Amino acid sequence: MTPQTLQVTEPLALACGRHLDSYQLVYETYGKLNAKASNAVLICHALSGTHHAAGYHSADDKKPGWWDHYIGPGKPIDTNQFFVVALNNLGGCAGSTGPTSINPATGEAWGPDFPILRVRDWVNSQAKLADALGIQCWAAVVGGSLGGMQAMRWTLEHPDRVKNCVVIASAMKLTAQNIAFNETARHAITSDPNFCDGNYLAHNTSPKQGLAIARMIGHITYLSGDGLGERFGRDVRSGSFEQGQDSLVEFQVQSYLRYQGDVFSDNFDANTYLLMTRALDYFDLAREYNDDAAQAFARAKARFCVVSFTTDWRFSPERSREIAQALIAANKSVCYAEIESNFGHDAFLLPDQRYEQVFSRFMQTVSAEANQ
Amino acid sequence: MTPQTLQVTEPLALACGRHLDSYQLVYETYGKLNAKASNAVLICHALSGTHHAAGYHSADDKKPGWWDHYIGPGKPIDTNQFFVVALNNLGGCAGSTGPTSINPATGEAWGPDFPILRVRDWVNSQAKLADALGIQCWAAVVGGSLGGMQAMRWTLEHPDRVKNCVVIASAMKLTAQNIAFNETARHAITSDPNFCDGNYLAHNTSPKQGLAIARMIGHITYLSGDGLGERFGRDVRSGSFEQGQDSLVEFQVQSYLRYQGDVFSDNFDANTYLLMTRALDYFDLAREYNDDAAQAFARAKARFCVVSFTTDWRFSPERSREIAQALIAANKSVCYAEIESNFGHDAFLLPDQRYEQVFSRFMQTVSAEANQ
Repeated sequence: MTPQTLQVTEPLALACGRHLDSYQLVYETYGKLNAKASNAVLICHALSGTHHAAGYHSADDKKPGWWDHYIGPGKPIDTNQFFVVALNNLGGCAGSTGPTSINPATGEAWGPDFPILRVRDWVNSQAKLADALGIQCWAAVVGGSLGGMQAMRWTLEHPDRVKNCVVIASAMKLTAQNIAFNETARHAITSDPNFCDGNYLAHNTSPKQGLAIARMIGHITYLSGDGLGERFGRDVRSGSFEQGQDSLVEFQVQSYLRYQGDVFSDNFDANTYLLMTRALDYFDLAREYNDDAAQAFARAKARFCVVSFTTDWRFSPERSREIAQALIAANKSVCYAEIESNFGHDAFLLPDQRYEQVFSRFMQTVSAEANQ
Repeated sequence: MTPQTLQVTEPLALACGRHLDSYQLVYETYGKLNAKASNAVLICHALSGTHHAAGYHSADDKKPGWWDHYIGPGKPIDTNQFFVVALNNLGGCAGSTGPTSINPATGEAWGPDFPILRVRDWVNSQAKLADALGIQCWAAVVGGSLGGMQAMRWTLEHPDRVKNCVVIASAMKLTAQNIAFNETARHAITSDPNFCDGNYLAHNTSPKQGLAIARMIGHITYLSGDGLGERFGRDVRSGSFEQGQDSLVEFQVQSYLRYQGDVFSDNFDANTYLLMTRALDYFDLAREYNDDAAQAFARAKARFCVVSFTTDWRFSPERSREIAQALIAANKSVCYAEIESNFGHDAFLLPDQRYEQVFSRFMQTVSAEANQ
């Protein structure tokens, strides 16, 4: 897989009232677009995802793309059937224009001056990518978590350009608890002295400690309590509980979290993290539809597949049932599956037979229509 | 209420193998000790509690002690019936010897050199306080959360000195998830540049930002998701969602958390916070009893009352049921109540009619025996 880059020179009007004169989007594609351009599937990523959703960039790569379990030949998003498009969202830090990019107006990195983005801005920039690729209508727009919010927004903003919508482990809006976790993560970043009001690049530094803490909070809450327990329990990595040992005990779960935090903070941009979590918090599908989700979905023309996981407590099954119920109230076609899983929110990324079956079955109907 | 201080000059051997040559414990008492000294109740505090459990210190006080809902005349822990003792634990920062106290060996604050404490160390120092007050046997030892761990440990370490034991919203050991949250909180503190390896007092500073983040994590997780939702929802405090408003939106729940974090970090010692959370993480009631809780409780002579709250997800009802089951297996007297509450772990501090009824009824039987 080799990433490609789309350079857009037409200005993009943003929800916040500002606009971007030009921007670039980095993306990958898997499979072949058919003659009618009717078999294209858009993958929308979540908080820390990228355009590298499947496959390997080189033989040396240790890990494949982030959703390789579900994208590939014979997999639910079957690259023998579909032309799959995965991009790094605007505001990201994996190649698309974002806070680490140069602001043409100043010749320096955007940093904290990068515009505040909403989910609809991603949808609109993704539509430009679709135009460039000659895709008038997606066979499906698919996403988990924040990606599911983009998939839903697509069906409202561009109802004629989405035939099917797959919404996994997502929500029509976040709960107060979810916002509170994101806020604490953001506070850890912005109160890091190396944050420098967001101008850390200009100061040749990075709020790594804050970003690591943000990631640690994320990690705990995206896993289930039982999942953490099964994986780590109270296993001790160093130190001792023996009487007469004046040493600090380090649990396995501690070293794991610290390691995850450190790896993440070495590779991710803090301003992007702030931007992504704010887009999550601000998303409210029905805000401009009198807070009536059924009224919102009335615009949609897509068929929907909604999936949740039993132990996901940040995007709980209740949130997905609300989506399904709003779709039913709007008289839309929806299939809803609640998958037994022990892996919390992370389940949407992990192999699971039932999940795979549900996902495959739905995508087979999409393929049958797309390739007829 | 006026706090008193006990100065202990007899050395205290600690579980870590070190000892304290001398130390002081600050405490308050409510009610009167009867002639037989049989009506004394010990209150064990949790993470951030103090000796000021009930009543007011002066007419100017804005808030009473931390458990004033449950301690006082006619309340469950009825000060007309009981002589109630509440202390600040060793290692605390409210007056008892702890990391902010002067280390006699150096003439400077202990700071990070203060010994690592285990729950049993608190129990043993509380026993010295009992000796000093002429209390051979407690009518009851009572605690919530980390305080409940102390209450349980009392019944194993000093079985003849505890007639009744009330364990509220507690656990025999923490789960991996709980440890993970504590670890993230500790990491926020220790990675704050003002932490100075724990020697912040010597540097005339304080890791306030880290401590505030630790408290924010605590706050979210000690409340239930529904409780946060009912209290704050997605209400906005400042900023706007209107199109064309390039402003950051601040949710009510954000300002609340930041405020709570700031207030706490102005008033609490970071090394004490580390010490208290480590005691929580390290506690494992049955570790030295072949990991068999029934075997551990076989030593106990007390009658038990165990209480949990339905939406408490850090010390879930399941953990309390484990305590009750181990007590039953050990053939001990136990009453267990699971209280419907929307307030998560914090419920143990808040007014609630059912909780009050259960608690009062149990304490009435304690009083009947104590004062006969």
